[in-house]
Amino acid sequence: MMTAPALAETGSALPQDVSETAEALMDAAASDTVGLQFVEDLTTEIGPRLAGSPAEARARTWAVNELKQLGFQNVHVEDFSIPYWTRTHEIAEVVGPNAQPLVITALGGSKATPQGGLEAEIVRFESLSDLQAAPAGSLNGKIAYIDELMYKTQDGSGYGLAVRKRSGCAKAAAEKGAVACLIRSVGTQSHRIPHTGIMSRDGALGALPAAALSAPDADQLSRLLERGDVRVKLDIGVQSAEAAPSGNVIGEIEGTDLKDEIVLIGCHLDSWDLGTGAIDDGAGCGIVVGAAKLIDALPAKPRRTIRVVLYGSEEVGLFGGDAYARQHGDDLDKHVLAAESDFGAGRVWQFQTRFGEGAKPYGDAIKAMLTKVGVAEGNNEAGGGPDVGVLRRAGVPVVTPSQDGRDYFDYHHTPDDTFDKINPEEFRQNIAVYAAFSYIAAETGWDFRKAADAESTQGAD
Amino acid sequence: MMTAPALAETGSALPQDVSETAEALMDAAASDTVGLQFVEDLTTEIGPRLAGSPAEARARTWAVNELKQLGFQNVHVEDFSIPYWTRTHEIAEVVGPNAQPLVITALGGSKATPQGGLEAEIVRFESLSDLQAAPAGSLNGKIAYIDELMYKTQDGSGYGLAVRKRSGCAKAAAEKGAVACLIRSVGTQSHRIPHTGIMSRDGALGALPAAALSAPDADQLSRLLERGDVRVKLDIGVQSAEAAPSGNVIGEIEGTDLKDEIVLIGCHLDSWDLGTGAIDDGAGCGIVVGAAKLIDALPAKPRRTIRVVLYGSEEVGLFGGDAYARQHGDDLDKHVLAAESDFGAGRVWQFQTRFGEGAKPYGDAIKAMLTKVGVAEGNNEAGGGPDVGVLRRAGVPVVTPSQDGRDYFDYHHTPDDTFDKINPEEFRQNIAVYAAFSYIAAETGWDFRKAADAESTQGAD
Ligand SMILES: [Zn+2]
Ligand SMILES: [Zn+2]
Repeated sequence: MMTAPALAETGSALPQDVSETAEALMDAAASDTVGLQFVEDLTTEIGPRLAGSPAEARARTWAVNELKQLGFQNVHVEDFSIPYWTRTHEIAEVVGPNAQPLVITALGGSKATPQGGLEAEIVRFESLSDLQAAPAGSLNGKIAYIDELMYKTQDGSGYGLAVRKRSGCAKAAAEKGAVACLIRSVGTQSHRIPHTGIMSRDGALGALPAAALSAPDADQLSRLLERGDVRVKLDIGVQSAEAAPSGNVIGEIEGTDLKDEIVLIGCHLDSWDLGTGAIDDGAGCGIVVGAAKLIDALPAKPRRTIRVVLYGSEEVGLFGGDAYARQHGDDLDKHVLAAESDFGAGRVWQFQTRFGEGAKPYGDAIKAMLTKVGVAEGNNEAGGGPDVGVLRRAGVPVVTPSQDGRDYFDYHHTPDDTFDKINPEEFRQNIAVYAAFSYIAAETGWDFRKAADAESTQGAD
Repeated sequence: MMTAPALAETGSALPQDVSETAEALMDAAASDTVGLQFVEDLTTEIGPRLAGSPAEARARTWAVNELKQLGFQNVHVEDFSIPYWTRTHEIAEVVGPNAQPLVITALGGSKATPQGGLEAEIVRFESLSDLQAAPAGSLNGKIAYIDELMYKTQDGSGYGLAVRKRSGCAKAAAEKGAVACLIRSVGTQSHRIPHTGIMSRDGALGALPAAALSAPDADQLSRLLERGDVRVKLDIGVQSAEAAPSGNVIGEIEGTDLKDEIVLIGCHLDSWDLGTGAIDDGAGCGIVVGAAKLIDALPAKPRRTIRVVLYGSEEVGLFGGDAYARQHGDDLDKHVLAAESDFGAGRVWQFQTRFGEGAKPYGDAIKAMLTKVGVAEGNNEAGGGPDVGVLRRAGVPVVTPSQDGRDYFDYHHTPDDTFDKINPEEFRQNIAVYAAFSYIAAETGWDFRKAADAESTQGAD
């Protein structure tokens, strides 16, 4: 065990050589090509990679080869199994005097409609709560339609609220006797591009056939309902299985004297099937791979190991994160820090931590460094990211480089999530942030769990 | 015949009462509800209305009822017949190690692929000219792909150039032995939304199966081609017929002492099948209907007749315009002015005329009036609009209120052409322009054909 730097003497300040190296990493990130190439190759050569699908399996093989070629160490896949769902077709049309097609996409876990489709009257609700408040039996044989808007915010906070209708519609509608459920797309754009997403992580299939209407189609359906009753024909085909193969792809930049200690930076390798998974979450994978490679290219490796985890099956229920926590449950105390990039490729505008009270000076030192790439100092209530949440709840310190997400839900979970939506300059600023904090965490040996009254030599120091 | 206003005395200046009424019309247009409601109802209650389809027939019936209810006179349909084409399905996917779906839409007139689809290697061309220059037989059994960009301009001038690849691809590719043709979508947006449009007006079917890739899919295909050979499976289904019913819907605000003389303002009623035909061309119909209704609401009708023509089957070859010219060939000299609104709902930024040299003062007077709603004075080389072109070529004076079309090709001919894309304020400024010039043309009795050396009392005056 190393002797810790004399913190009483240096305070939280970074040793000068660490500080200089972190700055050099951030400079190098500004012209990085590895990270962006990783996203371009993944989204081009594999494209969509739905959890549990053959395409996700191809993505794992591709990623293992890629990480090996990039010089990562201990590259391997950790397998697990998930419930599997995929769409085969999805068609909706208004029938009767205003006959016309509607653009929909089935929600993840939608049941199939009966062979040949179903046709039923639409009953509109302003919100999930309104649907839940409808009398039992009041929707017998009908299609429930939740026409709730999502608002656009920098932090994506509109999403959590909007997603409630996606997870709740089929169950609530089924309880009232409905035969299917339609929702206005979760999302913030007004193109003829609907937004998919999982209904529930309990098994492969939800309670009803369920689909999202693109925003213009939701507008149209609502305008038609203002004019009178509307009947819609819905024809959704799906395939599902209780078990399908998935896995996490892992690669490392091995540390030196503290190599058993892990700085985990993650993303998810799976994507929804409609786009090519560029901003969700090819970008996150490119960011963490690019950052790790910049550190690997340093003249001397940092003390701790940088572990890159490309999680599988995040989209359908955080299965990769859970599998990782299960498979590494015995050495979570060796995980000194974790973070996941899964909010697109927009600029990092603030940096949040979730450290022990005694580690606040370490957080301050990292935050001070990141101001050099335009990042504001955030609070100590970081979430860490979806697959990393399970580690946070198990006590692993996490950070969240908060990205500007105003445009994220214009593309997220839609066919429009494609490589051209990534701004290379903003993307590279993310690499700068990940490279800098990962390097500092790996090189200083700081204990981010440190309690308020702890000795300065606790833990790894 | 009326005695003309003493032009030698007033020059081209509008009589004060005409000027005041034109200004009042423009003021009223700013809060018009009739025009926008017309577009909303048409695009909602009918939705897509492909030329020759049952939906276009429903649109004619709808429009006749609507015009009658609005108080138009002489409302009727003038029937004609067109070659008919519609898509039934359109699927494309990369096959092989990079297997993934591609978002396409068949071009109007595309042939069907053989039952079960076809699979072939892609050969990319930078431009139609490059394809045309390829050796005979060099594409035997292959799919030609033209990856040519369209540029965004205020006047839409990028469209004419970009459209050449749409009309030329199948024919050129067939000559080289290809089995199908793909083009990068004509259009200026980067969404996963492809752009359709007619290949040729010669019969219902073109030379090959032909489709457009959305811009991100064109990017993707080009990136894949950089990496090696690409095979694509294409499955396009169509229905076609040599003859299907179409028609022009006509309504009038009848004039008084000069009611045999026609001021024609038109639009087209048909639309492509992918969107609901809001900007192309529901907006144009709402503009001319709204403008005519404002004139109808004046305390006194103008002297000439305002004829509104909602042309059928513009999109598939200007069949409505040709039918109108055929059916009214004997009284084209009674058409004193014609214009068509068919470029969306963006603000009018300049006003062009095509008048006889002697009628320049009349054009100047109208242009001076329109500066009050922010319209610049344009030249005397107006085209008049697609269906009106045939009248212009037959000597009918035309005007073109030039709209700002920077966003037009973001939506035009795509699923995204929906009612929400119309800006009501900009739309109403168009109504102001149409109401003002139509009223002035109808009330003054001016002769816009007037030659340079003509007497001031020539023609209608
Ligand atoms: Zn994600
Ligand atoms: Zn048009």
